[in-house]
Amino acid sequence: MDYVLLVDILGVVAFSISGVLSSLKKRMDAFGILIIAFVTSVGGGTLRDLLIGTPVAWLRNMTYVYVIIGTTILAVIFRKKLSYFRRSLFLFDTIGIGLYTVLGIEKGLAADLSPIVCIALGTTTACFGGVIRDILCNDIPVIFRKEIYATACILGGITYFVLLQFGFVESIIFISSGIVVILVRSLAVYFNLQLPSIYKNEEINPES
Amino acid sequence: MDYVLLVDILGVVAFSISGVLSSLKKRMDAFGILIIAFVTSVGGGTLRDLLIGTPVAWLRNMTYVYVIIGTTILAVIFRKKLSYFRRSLFLFDTIGIGLYTVLGIEKGLAADLSPIVCIALGTTTACFGGVIRDILCNDIPVIFRKEIYATACILGGITYFVLLQFGFVESIIFISSGIVVILVRSLAVYFNLQLPSIYKNEEINPES
Amino acid sequence: MDYVLLVDILGVVAFSISGVLSSLKKRMDAFGILIIAFVTSVGGGTLRDLLIGTPVAWLRNMTYVYVIIGTTILAVIFRKKLSYFRRSLFLFDTIGIGLYTVLGIEKGLAADLSPIVCIALGTTTACFGGVIRDILCNDIPVIFRKEIYATACILGGITYFVLLQFGFVESIIFISSGIVVILVRSLAVYFNLQLPSIYKNEEINPES
Repeated sequence: MDYVLLVDILGVVAFSISGVLSSLKKRMDAFGILIIAFVTSVGGGTLRDLLIGTPVAWLRNMTYVYVIIGTTILAVIFRKKLSYFRRSLFLFDTIGIGLYTVLGIEKGLAADLSPIVCIALGTTTACFGGVIRDILCNDIPVIFRKEIYATACILGGITYFVLLQFGFVESIIFISSGIVVILVRSLAVYFNLQLPSIYKNEEINPES
Repeated sequence: MDYVLLVDILGVVAFSISGVLSSLKKRMDAFGILIIAFVTSVGGGTLRDLLIGTPVAWLRNMTYVYVIIGTTILAVIFRKKLSYFRRSLFLFDTIGIGLYTVLGIEKGLAADLSPIVCIALGTTTACFGGVIRDILCNDIPVIFRKEIYATACILGGITYFVLLQFGFVESIIFISSGIVVILVRSLAVYFNLQLPSIYKNEEINPES
Repeated sequence: MDYVLLVDILGVVAFSISGVLSSLKKRMDAFGILIIAFVTSVGGGTLRDLLIGTPVAWLRNMTYVYVIIGTTILAVIFRKKLSYFRRSLFLFDTIGIGLYTVLGIEKGLAADLSPIVCIALGTTTACFGGVIRDILCNDIPVIFRKEIYATACILGGITYFVLLQFGFVESIIFISSGIVVILVRSLAVYFNLQLPSIYKNEEINPES
């Protein structure tokens, strides 16, 4: 339990800082920075909760609110030092999406939804905070364009249901699926892998 | 019943393909393309369900999920051939918005909402998938700028309530309103009609 | 009671006009202008209601719908004269965000949420209509970049809970907090105040 909470908070810290960095690049003011940190951290889970129809979690859990506000203030003050923590931040972020994928899947299962939809909700939980961040910053969401990010979440989700099928106990499924997400994402970044391009030298010219 | 489902699926196919085309233009990767196809297809209905407060339909109906995934894969593979189907795609899309407008209106009526709000919900169902697609692709939503598209849905919605007023049976109202949407949209494209411009050579210079 | 409704309507008028002005700058057609006016007016309250899980108010209150449609039509027709009303529009807008902040806080309190979350919901009610307007117009939300706007709402929210702590009666708290929002916002514009910049001549170059 407490491990889950600790991992969750590390994820929130990483997501908040990624929001702060995006908003600094757009030269937002203090309020804008805080909002972007906030939606990056809780946007994915909020969208999931709205879709399923369950209460939005962060409204009733002040831990998130305090962690986001505290992280944002520290990240702005020490923004020039953040590059020293790049490796830790990547680690937190990666562990965060691993956890969020599995938490999202379990919320979907609790609402009695089918595996594909649960995997979609897990991926949404992990990735859509970043999507909303990019929309508010007026960029095309980065995860739509490059890197094995959502793909790692989807593979972790498939692992979850394969292990469930074989009758493993819940805690093993939980941890193994999370680790798959973390491993795939880490290996992809380490070896600089991308999804196979579907464009290869072609000139796209679709009729609209 | 089965006719409605068939028409619905044709609409989903057309919407998915329009999402694939938009995301190819932005050179998204496989994951991005799938997400854009998905939100284009189900975004309007999802927003309507969230506003009304009814459960989001596609979470519990795997037909949509399978059709969207299948269409997206086929559309990416045969993307260079899609221009041959332009006429069919336009037809599917037009029939789709006709159906979605009426389905949205009936969801609003079931929630006991007033005619104007029902028409707004019908139009939302038909048009907002495309709006969310354009936002995620970082474009100004195309239906805000040109073409008789939403206007066709609004006229179909007005038809619905006029016929309801005159006491027609439900199936006649359903089909007639849908046909009005399809006719207005088709004629507008055929004759290249637009809403009367409110700009006519003027230099807009509003104080902000 | 009637005063609240009157102030609310003045706010809706100001928000609708701000939506009309934004969409005219993007040369949208009549449908686009109406949609932007609509989301600017009701977007903040809608997001708040979705987050809390209460029914979306404007779906069942035709007053908003009529006021928005009427204001939009008049604003488009007299768009060249709007600069004469700049001062009144600023006043309406400022009074509007004062009211919306307090209404949002009270919705949060009714849902038994903590003060910080209530202040966030009040600020959301007042400010997120404009955020959604700017996203749909493909701009970075203006309130993330400049001006004391959201900050005025946050200060009004803090006032609310300080007065609540001291046991003042509800109507006094309501009016005083609203007036704090209005005063802070007016003084900020009058003296051209901004949040203290966190950039001061520095070159932002964060690692991503």
